Amino acid sequence: MTPAAPPAVLADLRSDTVTTPTPEMREAMAQAAVGDDVYGEDPTVNQLQAEVARLTGHEAGLFMPSGTMTNQVAIALHTRRGEEVVCAEGSHIYEWELGMMATFSGVVPRFVPAPLGVPDPEGVRLAVRHSIHQSPTGLISLENTHNKAGGTVIPLEVLVAIRGVADDEGLPLHLDGARVFNAAAALDVPVSEITRHFDTVSICLSKGLGAPVGSVLVGSAAAMKQAHRYRKMMGGGMRQAGVLAAAALIALRDGPARLKADHRRARRLAEALVEVGFDVDLAAVQTNMIYVTLPDAAAQVARWAEQGVLASALGPDSVRFVLHHQVSDEALEEAIRVLTA
Amino acid sequence: MTPAAPPAVLADLRSDTVTTPTPEMREAMAQAAVGDDVYGEDPTVNQLQAEVARLTGHEAGLFMPSGTMTNQVAIALHTRRGEEVVCAEGSHIYEWELGMMATFSGVVPRFVPAPLGVPDPEGVRLAVRHSIHQSPTGLISLENTHNKAGGTVIPLEVLVAIRGVADDEGLPLHLDGARVFNAAAALDVPVSEITRHFDTVSICLSKGLGAPVGSVLVGSAAAMKQAHRYRKMMGGGMRQAGVLAAAALIALRDGPARLKADHRRARRLAEALVEVGFDVDLAAVQTNMIYVTLPDAAAQVARWAEQGVLASALGPDSVRFVLHHQVSDEALEEAIRVLTA
Amino acid sequence: MTPAAPPAVLADLRSDTVTTPTPEMREAMAQAAVGDDVYGEDPTVNQLQAEVARLTGHEAGLFMPSGTMTNQVAIALHTRRGEEVVCAEGSHIYEWELGMMATFSGVVPRFVPAPLGVPDPEGVRLAVRHSIHQSPTGLISLENTHNKAGGTVIPLEVLVAIRGVADDEGLPLHLDGARVFNAAAALDVPVSEITRHFDTVSICLSKGLGAPVGSVLVGSAAAMKQAHRYRKMMGGGMRQAGVLAAAALIALRDGPARLKADHRRARRLAEALVEVGFDVDLAAVQTNMIYVTLPDAAAQVARWAEQGVLASALGPDSVRFVLHHQVSDEALEEAIRVLTA
Amino acid sequence: MTPAAPPAVLADLRSDTVTTPTPEMREAMAQAAVGDDVYGEDPTVNQLQAEVARLTGHEAGLFMPSGTMTNQVAIALHTRRGEEVVCAEGSHIYEWELGMMATFSGVVPRFVPAPLGVPDPEGVRLAVRHSIHQSPTGLISLENTHNKAGGTVIPLEVLVAIRGVADDEGLPLHLDGARVFNAAAALDVPVSEITRHFDTVSICLSKGLGAPVGSVLVGSAAAMKQAHRYRKMMGGGMRQAGVLAAAALIALRDGPARLKADHRRARRLAEALVEVGFDVDLAAVQTNMIYVTLPDAAAQVARWAEQGVLASALGPDSVRFVLHHQVSDEALEEAIRVLTA
Repeated sequence: MTPAAPPAVLADLRSDTVTTPTPEMREAMAQAAVGDDVYGEDPTVNQLQAEVARLTGHEAGLFMPSGTMTNQVAIALHTRRGEEVVCAEGSHIYEWELGMMATFSGVVPRFVPAPLGVPDPEGVRLAVRHSIHQSPTGLISLENTHNKAGGTVIPLEVLVAIRGVADDEGLPLHLDGARVFNAAAALDVPVSEITRHFDTVSICLSKGLGAPVGSVLVGSAAAMKQAHRYRKMMGGGMRQAGVLAAAALIALRDGPARLKADHRRARRLAEALVEVGFDVDLAAVQTNMIYVTLPDAAAQVARWAEQGVLASALGPDSVRFVLHHQVSDEALEEAIRVLTA
Repeated sequence: MTPAAPPAVLADLRSDTVTTPTPEMREAMAQAAVGDDVYGEDPTVNQLQAEVARLTGHEAGLFMPSGTMTNQVAIALHTRRGEEVVCAEGSHIYEWELGMMATFSGVVPRFVPAPLGVPDPEGVRLAVRHSIHQSPTGLISLENTHNKAGGTVIPLEVLVAIRGVADDEGLPLHLDGARVFNAAAALDVPVSEITRHFDTVSICLSKGLGAPVGSVLVGSAAAMKQAHRYRKMMGGGMRQAGVLAAAALIALRDGPARLKADHRRARRLAEALVEVGFDVDLAAVQTNMIYVTLPDAAAQVARWAEQGVLASALGPDSVRFVLHHQVSDEALEEAIRVLTA
Repeated sequence: MTPAAPPAVLADLRSDTVTTPTPEMREAMAQAAVGDDVYGEDPTVNQLQAEVARLTGHEAGLFMPSGTMTNQVAIALHTRRGEEVVCAEGSHIYEWELGMMATFSGVVPRFVPAPLGVPDPEGVRLAVRHSIHQSPTGLISLENTHNKAGGTVIPLEVLVAIRGVADDEGLPLHLDGARVFNAAAALDVPVSEITRHFDTVSICLSKGLGAPVGSVLVGSAAAMKQAHRYRKMMGGGMRQAGVLAAAALIALRDGPARLKADHRRARRLAEALVEVGFDVDLAAVQTNMIYVTLPDAAAQVARWAEQGVLASALGPDSVRFVLHHQVSDEALEEAIRVLTA
Repeated sequence: MTPAAPPAVLADLRSDTVTTPTPEMREAMAQAAVGDDVYGEDPTVNQLQAEVARLTGHEAGLFMPSGTMTNQVAIALHTRRGEEVVCAEGSHIYEWELGMMATFSGVVPRFVPAPLGVPDPEGVRLAVRHSIHQSPTGLISLENTHNKAGGTVIPLEVLVAIRGVADDEGLPLHLDGARVFNAAAALDVPVSEITRHFDTVSICLSKGLGAPVGSVLVGSAAAMKQAHRYRKMMGGGMRQAGVLAAAALIALRDGPARLKADHRRARRLAEALVEVGFDVDLAAVQTNMIYVTLPDAAAQVARWAEQGVLASALGPDSVRFVLHHQVSDEALEEAIRVLTA
């Protein structure tokens, strides 16, 4: 999607997935108590799963190598073949998970319009279908924050209303919470205020929180037992995964408190870009991302890369910047100098 | 499958997957140079992939979280929906990979009898089908060593003959080489003497070689490019996976030389068991495994576990012992005392 | 979707699928030479397949029980798992074929906006993707006439332009031609002028053409050989299917010439509805369908049904009328009296 | 599989699927009351479904174009992705349904040895698995008569015992009853004595019973409602299918009483073949089939075809003869003269 980083990088703003493990994480990995997690015997994995479940207000958790896997296992859990997954347009489960919902679970998406990433609850209700002449709905899935819409946040009252729709229609509700800690930081609420409205939540530890690898799916203990089988099918059964879980525990402990600074820096960058005339929808800059609309995005991104500022070209005229804990205020100001030159 | 280990374990002989990372591996993890492997930028992952490709005589490699994923990605690479995968009866891709070949790739197995895990090349040829009234064969897949048959080795001339059948029939040939380094040690040949006969090979680093997590699929560069997409679909795209690759590089460097000792110890254990009357097919004890046939396997395994010797009950009357580098000669003798008491 | 017909029906305008076989078709069925089509030995099926291939300018044809099957076999032919099918929003292959593209072929749709059912060729080009980070496009699929858009026709120059996009991108092009004879009648061209631009075309004989059962997929002989296997997988291998093919041959001979009258009557009905104030987009009334927007569609449809005029409620505020050869001018005038009362 | 019939055929013994519709069936097709079965409005289809349900002791039925579809819809009904279908080795759902269980339902077969087509109930029990480390069993499926084993019959007490295993294990039980009327004739019981032990049964009307096209799935009304959706997905929703159902009703009325004569003729043929030295397992000749083991089967079948006797070569050394109502005693004696010359 984007060329490899050149030698001297001022700021890698391509994604919050590019963070490297901190010394503390590396130390934790080196010291981790481990066991064979395929047998459920890795104490560090078990600790991480319990901790994520506790924080999100769920009964149990299951560690996996990626957020794609936690999302796709959740889709498999909740659906039967031939059903539809109602989701916001531009959802990661469709745009960036390469048809896995079709290939593994045999289901198709049904999109709901979502200005600024927020679907209207009545739009969700209209998208639900129960006819035998059409694909019945099997699952409603939300994404919060919504990556493609700009890292935008779903207001709590909208979550509550969509939970109501799900209950009215007898449907499960999943959250792609890859960046739900960013949403919690933006709303200034404990993450459980968001996550408790869902049957299952996918939590990514290797994005803004900074762990090298890993996501956790949370839900009921019964659901996680089923999830275990789907994880194994997808090849997510790892052996001494405690070495990853140890780093993830540090990310979980230290990461959330750092997110507000990322959001502040994203705002700073967005405003600096607007000031010199770039086309940025400031209303969408709610967390750690900025999307800029400009012609010939790939070429522009390549020019900036030569000057040490890395961004992602996500379409012919769309560039994304993402802030994370390894871009300091100083690095950001240097990047701004390059970008606004 | 087997209860968790009790406090004082003399010897954990359940599997060679239970090994924990050595101090050297932990140090390597703590020091690893890393990057975002989803962007192909993790130098340690790239080094591991190149090294496994080189050792096995293939063009390229791709790191994944498990051997199930490397096998299932290979099946997806080689087949189209509705085809058959010709494989030995008892193959891991069917017995222990939970129907993933059907769910993801839409294919079914076609079994070939395989006494001691070795399919007859003519049996393979007879199993191949090209009719439109039946499922056409899409892939021939072998397993070496063959786990369920006892960790048994396929003779080189049989591999060559089956490669000939594949060529005659215009079919690709995959190797589930989870324990192919054990096969190479048993045959006393470089691993490439085995692996070069295949289009793709799945190499597991977290079994006898001792890495905490990870497998590598090898094949042509073009095949690995396609494999990248399937890996991402299954959720195997990990971020700073270099922390795992660093440990795997140590395993790859130091592990193979240790396997002959595991095989010698397996032989010692098998003979000790036979001596006191256990039913063991010594002809099948060719590498690091021993299967014992005995009544009420689960109960017997539980009694041994209470005395600190862990084994796996793999059926109502079948128990498996597996040797690995963290069972020393001394520990083995203690285990033999318990098992033959 | 719609209640069963009451005893005295003035006009069944729910769909052009409701036509019953004519006396001539029944006679043909009773006289048909038949054989076992699973062995390729049914002469009447073979004749029908050859005739549809000839008319559409393709090399070969394959008879199947429904248009859903011909479309879904075509999708399977052209795609590999995890790919995307670029199609107009509201396409039948997605809206009314119940997720089969996902369940059988493991692919997802990628929608292109299509005002009046006509996708912009540049919109199609933008929807095509070749990245390994996203699902690659496997197929472009059009629908002509486009049912959900109102039975609308794609202009020939748009077809040519989209064929050009497909060629540029190295992609196959499929036509859901369930009602392509209606499109040909509206454009006043031989049907092959439309169908020759596609790699495969699905032709339905049981809609406006009036056969009781059956569709034919056309394409190259090699593609039809592959299609045979997918047809068998889906359970579409029928035995003495000549009894159906015999009726379909009559439909193919006599049906196309009747379609212009259906279109004239549709126009008459649409204008009569508009005259009394119904909300109909006359620009979309191009062939044999009329969509009316009105509140509480199901209740209104039920009231009309009590008076002998049957229509389909296709959404909370959408009613569809479809003309076909078993609604005469006289019946239509009676229906108009009821509908405009 | 077998070359097309030459001009002068003494006896077509390739399959009981080759029968052509009788004059009475053709008359019924020409007179059939029909409607749009996708809307559930075809009275003849409804009558057929009700009649098959009544005869088999089930609540409801659903008409489909083939036995492959009724079997595969049943598998979809009872299973979730990644599960196993326990079935006798050589089952039609695996051998002749082209991987559809994998492609559509995402499930794999688990075979039980079945001498003469009869699986041992304890073998079925041993094949059932509930572990999360392995694919759990989703369905037990039997075939009666068992085609590949020779058209063999499962004794009633074995059915009862396997029903008991299914109940013990909490699993559904499906019957591929393509030729269950042959089994009933051989056992001299009403067909419901066999079919009532199953959750769903697939009944084929176009084999020994002689209808041109069609199978009916029977089960609970709730199951048939779900089956309706899967039928539509596979493209089995036909419009005025009453033309086929009319012939099937005749087959259902007249066919069963003719089967004993087919069985008598099969016995006659088998004994004649044995008498001149052919290798036939007479214990397997229980209904209307004879399997002969002989070298170079395809060439032998071709020689017989030149003399007007058609058989099927089903493997390199296996030929199958099938009796049906369009092979009279006279035709059989002529065929025997050719075959024993």
